Amino acid sequence: MRRLHPSRKICDMHASIQIDLDLPGDLARFQLPTGVNARLTELLDKQDKGHPLSESEKSEAEGLVDLADTLSYLGLKAANAS
Amino acid sequence: MRRLHPSRKICDMHASIQIDLDLPGDLARFQLPTGVNARLTELLDKQDKGHPLSESEKSEAEGLVDLADTLSYLGLKAANAS
Repeated sequence: MRRLHPSRKICDMHASIQIDLDLPGDLARFQLPTGVNARLTELLDKQDKGHPLSESEKSEAEGLVDLADTLSYLGLKAANAS
Repeated sequence: MRRLHPSRKICDMHASIQIDLDLPGDLARFQLPTGVNARLTELLDKQDKGHPLSESEKSEAEGLVDLADTLSYLGLKAANAS
């Protein structure tokens, strides 16, 4: 996702679990909630405009990208399972 | 979680899926990534100090609470499955 990359490439945990998913709203579409996605866009836009992110903003943005990736991943799994 | 409540009580989606989870870092512990949790704390602290959140901040905070709840829920499912 643009200049940010997930903070870690190595998978730290593996588990095979059967999940009955009951997910609210945006999460049911395996996307970041609207307000959270807007915040990520705000941070990425700031960076794209040449304003370096603070350390806390960078950590936040990387975490949000990890969350978005994880949701996409769950969405792909759910699509394959259905 | 303090004064914020998940934005929706109604479950919008149900699916039963078998997932092989490969989750990075904090997500493997079914918690918000550190930098994202810090942002949520910042927003909640602001609110607790009597500074009302803007509409976008409120939407962001509610989405983050939904994400945290969903991760906890996945963590409970994973614990039950293991």
